[in-house]
Amino acid sequence: MDQQLHVLTVATPDLDAARHFYSDALGWTPTLDVPGEIIFYQVAHGLLLGLFAAETFDEDLGVPGAHRGVSGLTLAHNVDTPDAVREVVAAMVSGGGEVVTAPGQGRFGGVFHAHVRDPNGIHWEIAHNSGWRIDEDGSVRLG
Amino acid sequence: MDQQLHVLTVATPDLDAARHFYSDALGWTPTLDVPGEIIFYQVAHGLLLGLFAAETFDEDLGVPGAHRGVSGLTLAHNVDTPDAVREVVAAMVSGGGEVVTAPGQGRFGGVFHAHVRDPNGIHWEIAHNSGWRIDEDGSVRLG
Repeated sequence: MDQQLHVLTVATPDLDAARHFYSDALGWTPTLDVPGEIIFYQVAHGLLLGLFAAETFDEDLGVPGAHRGVSGLTLAHNVDTPDAVREVVAAMVSGGGEVVTAPGQGRFGGVFHAHVRDPNGIHWEIAHNSGWRIDEDGSVRLG
Repeated sequence: MDQQLHVLTVATPDLDAARHFYSDALGWTPTLDVPGEIIFYQVAHGLLLGLFAAETFDEDLGVPGAHRGVSGLTLAHNVDTPDAVREVVAAMVSGGGEVVTAPGQGRFGGVFHAHVRDPNGIHWEIAHNSGWRIDEDGSVRLG
């Protein structure tokens, strides 16, 4: 199996809150927005984030009512400076996000980060990590 | 905020089962594998999937014991033919995956797919979707 993810789909109880958070507050452009059903945002080369109405998400898996949302998932976004961490956190809060850990030094060396919970329970880590590098071919280098 | 995801981290109760599934059965190469802590696999240009020991995941968010694993998340992998769907599903089952929906036509036109639950609760959709296209610049086209 190729080591490639194409879509990341999350059970989303409140699509309108998701649209307000991602499209309005963060300024993202949806690839597709079907009110009441799904919103897709492109979040990497060849990769979509799909916010899928929770009830439909469950029906699709044949487990009606199983998921009221997402749990146990963190999405991380890296920025170039500690100030950019603070700016993204502020934008997220303006869109209905809730700060889980305020911007500060992380437990691991060299990382300045914050955690924000989006209105549907997705945790975002916003991080400035000087040990993170993406080569021209897309390979990620750590440390 | 740039519309870019860098890391996707999942609370993982059993890292050894995850390693067996992704490294052994699917043949993926980890970017980093720290037994008992975390395994990173690169899954797109500039993007890592992080399988993070569930207890540490919770500590990191300041909510000890909150997550026994992940819920409400589906990762999708697209392949070129229906037979390739069946092959990937077979590889996943050999690594401890559980078939949730067997390979077959989806509810939406033109998609042939299956759902498999990995040993830690991540649902994978393996799909052949003739309406899916990635342009050279990485833009995803639907339909």
